Amino acid sequence: MIISSATNERIKNAVALRSRRQRARTGLILVEGETEISRALAAGLAPESLFVPVGSHPRLSSACRRLGGTVVEVEGPALDRLAVRGASSPVMVAERAPTGLDALPTPGEQSALYLVVEAIEKPGNLGAMIRTADGAGIDGLVVADPTVDPFGPNVIRASLGSVFSMPTAVATSSDTIDWLQRRHVTIVVTTPGATVEWTQADLTGSVACVIGAEHQGLSAAWLEVADQSVFLPMHGVGDSLNAAATAAIILYEAVRQRSR
Amino acid sequence: MIISSATNERIKNAVALRSRRQRARTGLILVEGETEISRALAAGLAPESLFVPVGSHPRLSSACRRLGGTVVEVEGPALDRLAVRGASSPVMVAERAPTGLDALPTPGEQSALYLVVEAIEKPGNLGAMIRTADGAGIDGLVVADPTVDPFGPNVIRASLGSVFSMPTAVATSSDTIDWLQRRHVTIVVTTPGATVEWTQADLTGSVACVIGAEHQGLSAAWLEVADQSVFLPMHGVGDSLNAAATAAIILYEAVRQRSR
Repeated sequence: MIISSATNERIKNAVALRSRRQRARTGLILVEGETEISRALAAGLAPESLFVPVGSHPRLSSACRRLGGTVVEVEGPALDRLAVRGASSPVMVAERAPTGLDALPTPGEQSALYLVVEAIEKPGNLGAMIRTADGAGIDGLVVADPTVDPFGPNVIRASLGSVFSMPTAVATSSDTIDWLQRRHVTIVVTTPGATVEWTQADLTGSVACVIGAEHQGLSAAWLEVADQSVFLPMHGVGDSLNAAATAAIILYEAVRQRSR
Repeated sequence: MIISSATNERIKNAVALRSRRQRARTGLILVEGETEISRALAAGLAPESLFVPVGSHPRLSSACRRLGGTVVEVEGPALDRLAVRGASSPVMVAERAPTGLDALPTPGEQSALYLVVEAIEKPGNLGAMIRTADGAGIDGLVVADPTVDPFGPNVIRASLGSVFSMPTAVATSSDTIDWLQRRHVTIVVTTPGATVEWTQADLTGSVACVIGAEHQGLSAAWLEVADQSVFLPMHGVGDSLNAAATAAIILYEAVRQRSR
């Protein structure tokens, strides 16, 4: 099938998925970019349709067909309307993965490492954190009290598609705390008010590292239930780091401690 | 002085400083936001003019006048045109600080820590790195072979104004390598091809941590002169982290080693 009209229903429906409300209504998401789509398919996401410039991306197209998706070749105005990231970029519509807390693996005989991000506001920050969490090999991510959709286009892009292979839950802080405590996961919060440096906390057991929002930091709910509060020393004029930088430092401190 | 016209010369000249070319031509920069302006003035930047909504920001205004700057009150269309970050946000035009390599402190009796970022492309990444470098208390930053102006509005914002107190040089990689080697600074590069983990390098002496560009990584010039090459383990589907996350992990590893 080749589509060139920008007002074709399939094109319109795909583009509409840039809106969070439309993603929530349909249970579908929009994935842009070759790396991101490959990682989504490798992680088991069910493709609905793949839009590629006419004659391009044969390998992605076969992978999509094999998994039951429709491949649509696009050109002209249809391509222009779809391809936010450049005219050669493929775009996929796929089913959203479930994001209940039961999407997370529970701690087993090996100790587990989780990242909880509370009320993060910037898609780029959330995506960068997911990319770092993927690198650190954590077991699962919770987006608590979300203001950003972890399957929005900018998060997917900043995570380079690693969000698809990362077990990800979206939940209230209250439900997340309950889930962690029932499984005896140590809750470690990073907050400027702490008195213990980040390297002094034991991050080798089953641990959830909890990072607060860009401006407000962590809510009282998390500060109250924390088993351990740590801070990063601030030697300059600023009093905090970017949330994604904080997450990177804490997660790789956990990697350092766990590799010893 | 109160200005309400959006076509007033002062307003036009200030807005024009959003363009990198205009900043280079005039030697002036544009600083937006209360925190950022306060930090610029505290760091000794010379203000040319401060634009504030009529009747607002009395403290900033006195500080600006004391340092020889003109305070301009703005309202209506003039305010709308200036205030990208919201109608209550002040905007300052100031002289650009010098950014030759001689702007950097040289290693003294205490060992020095530098961050070198090569050809970083995203202002948000550069700004986040500067904010982290400020937190880590490093002695100086070099933007090598720059594609981004470290005094552009988005870098200033992402650094929360910490770029002004950070000794910052803009130089070619070749000149930077020469500067570091003459001063016997150990060059530590982070690259996926290394065989030594980031925690195994000695970061306690006079060290320059060198981070490559988002897509291309480090150029051969840096890889060849490196005294030490380190990598961050990648336990997930991705093969690298975001450049700002990498810088954060390396710099705080240096902080950890130096505090022992």
